[in-house]
Amino acid sequence: MKINGKDARALWFEKGAIKFIDQRKLPYKLEYYIAKNVDECAFAIKDMVVRGAPAIGATAVYGMVLGINDVKKTVETLRKTRPTAYDLFYAIDYMKEKIKDGVDPLKAANNYVEDIIDRCRKIGEHGAPLIKDGMKILTHCNAGALATVDWGTALAPFRIAHKIGKKFFVFADETRPRCQGLLTDWELEQEGIPHAVIADNAAGYFMKNGEIDLVITGADRIAKNGDFANKIGTYEKAVLARENDIPFYVAAPVSTFDKSIKSGDEIIIEERGREELAVVNNYKIMPEYTKIRNPAFDITPHKYVKGYITERGVFEKPSF
Amino acid sequence: MKINGKDARALWFEKGAIKFIDQRKLPYKLEYYIAKNVDECAFAIKDMVVRGAPAIGATAVYGMVLGINDVKKTVETLRKTRPTAYDLFYAIDYMKEKIKDGVDPLKAANNYVEDIIDRCRKIGEHGAPLIKDGMKILTHCNAGALATVDWGTALAPFRIAHKIGKKFFVFADETRPRCQGLLTDWELEQEGIPHAVIADNAAGYFMKNGEIDLVITGADRIAKNGDFANKIGTYEKAVLARENDIPFYVAAPVSTFDKSIKSGDEIIIEERGREELAVVNNYKIMPEYTKIRNPAFDITPHKYVKGYITERGVFEKPSF
Repeated sequence: MKINGKDARALWFEKGAIKFIDQRKLPYKLEYYIAKNVDECAFAIKDMVVRGAPAIGATAVYGMVLGINDVKKTVETLRKTRPTAYDLFYAIDYMKEKIKDGVDPLKAANNYVEDIIDRCRKIGEHGAPLIKDGMKILTHCNAGALATVDWGTALAPFRIAHKIGKKFFVFADETRPRCQGLLTDWELEQEGIPHAVIADNAAGYFMKNGEIDLVITGADRIAKNGDFANKIGTYEKAVLARENDIPFYVAAPVSTFDKSIKSGDEIIIEERGREELAVVNNYKIMPEYTKIRNPAFDITPHKYVKGYITERGVFEKPSF
Repeated sequence: MKINGKDARALWFEKGAIKFIDQRKLPYKLEYYIAKNVDECAFAIKDMVVRGAPAIGATAVYGMVLGINDVKKTVETLRKTRPTAYDLFYAIDYMKEKIKDGVDPLKAANNYVEDIIDRCRKIGEHGAPLIKDGMKILTHCNAGALATVDWGTALAPFRIAHKIGKKFFVFADETRPRCQGLLTDWELEQEGIPHAVIADNAAGYFMKNGEIDLVITGADRIAKNGDFANKIGTYEKAVLARENDIPFYVAAPVSTFDKSIKSGDEIIIEERGREELAVVNNYKIMPEYTKIRNPAFDITPHKYVKGYITERGVFEKPSF
C-alpha cells in the first residue's frame, strides 16, 4: 500500500519487536505501536491496534517469535485474544509446527507474512476482472491493506483494477460502531481511487436506486458450506444486495476457510462493550444512561454470496 | 410525554412565540429554542431544532400565526424548508383555508395541534394490541413525542402498551447520520420502557437471531399505493424484516398519506450536507478530505409493509 506516496505495510518485525500502524489512531493521526513482548502483542490484537483476520494472523506469527521461550504460554495468551478470527488459530498452529520442525521462528514468521501478501495480491488479480469500467461498488468495513499487511482482500481487486486503468467508484460504508469505513476511506484516498463514505443506513438506498453494481467484502471466518462471519452489518448488505439483484462477493485467502465447521451456526459471535458504540475517537457521543447491545460480527448465509474471491481463483462455492 | 416525571410537549405557542425543545441539543442537554418570527420558525425546521413530520406540521401552523401579516410570503418561506415533509404542506393549506374563512389564526393553530396529539394517542390505542407480552420490538429513527408534539407515532403504541402493564423490550436503531435513535432512547428512558440502542448494522443480526418479533417505524410521507418515505435506513430494515418473516408496521396519522402521488417513485429525496455524517454533536469524527453522499430519506415499497397504524385503525393497505 501507499502512505504519502511511499510503499508501506500495516505491520512488520524490526529489532526484536513488532511495529504496527496504530489503527486506533487512524484516520486522524498516523502513529505507530510497538509490541516488545507477548502481552503487548496480545494487547494489540485485543484493543484493535491491529484488526482484520489476515493481519491478526501476521501479528500472531510474530507474537510466537516474541514468545519463543515459553511456547505453551504464548499460545494460550494469543488464542484468547479474538475468538472470531480463524486466521489467529491457523497462524498459531503453523508456527507450532515450524517450531517443532526446528525452522528458525523469525524466518518461518516472515515466510508466513510474505505468503499472506502474495495471496492478497493474487486475490486482487482474480477479483479485478469482476470490476468493469463505470461500475459503482460497495464495500463494508475495512478489508484493506491495514487488515492484511498489504494489498487487502476486498480492496485488492480495487487496487489491481485501478493500477491497470479501470474507472470505477467505491462506496465505503461508515461501518459503525468502530467506523472502519474511515480506514477504507483513508486507504482509497492514499491510492487515488474515487470514492465516498456513506452511512450504513444508506447502502440499501443506493442499491435500490441502481447506483451500486457490485458488492465486495472481506470475511473473518468462512464455514465449509460458505456461510461466513464478518463485521456486523455485512449480513444486512448481503440481504439487500440479493433483494436488488446485485452480485455479492466475499474476498478472502484460503486460510479464512475453516473446514472444521459445517455452517455459520457453529461460529460464536462476540458481543463487545458499550464504549465501542458510545465513544468515537475518545469522544462520548452517547449519554451515560444509554444501554447498548453490541454484537461485533454477524453471520451471512452462503445463499447470499455470488462467489468467493481467493488466491486460487473465484469460486461459486468453497469447493477447493 | 414525561420529562423528569412531569407532563411536557415538544413545542407550544406562548406569548407570541413558538417554544421548542431544542432537538439539536438532546439528549445531551435539555434546552429550549424560541421562534419570534417566520424566519426563526423556518430556521427551526431547516436546522432541525424540530423534526418529524407531525411536529413540523405543528410548527408550520404556528409559523402561519407568526406571519399572519403577510400570508403569501409566510407560505413561500415555510414551504421551502423541508420538501419531503408532506405534513408541512398539509398544515399550511389548512391554515390558509382557516384564515380565508375568518377563523382566529391562533385558535385554528391550537386546534390543529390538539388534533395531532389526539390522533397520535389513537394511533397508540390502535397499535398497542399488536404488542404482546415478552415481545422484542425494533424501531428506527425517532417517531416519538419529540416528532409529533406528544405521544409519537411509532412510539405511541409503546406508551399505551406500557401504561396498561405489558412487558416488552425495544431495540432503538442508532439511526446515523443524525443519531435520532438517541432521542428515542431519551424518550423511552423518561417513560421507563426497557430498551437498548444498537448500531444500525446490528438490526439484521438481531432479526436473524430471532430476537426481534415486530418492527414499527414512522413515516414522513405515504403515497397512494402505500410506498412511504422515511428516515434513511428504513428501507433496509423493512427488507430485512420481510427476509426474516417479521411483521413491519408503519405508524402515521392520516395526514401523512398523500393521495396526490401514486407511488414512492414520485417522492423527491433530499441529499443533505456532509457535516451531518462527519460531525456528531459539534465534534468532527471524519477527516476534512472525506467525501460523503448523504441521502436523508429513502422510499420503502408497500410490499414490505404488513400494516399501517393510523388514528382510524390498522389497515393492510391505505384504503381509507
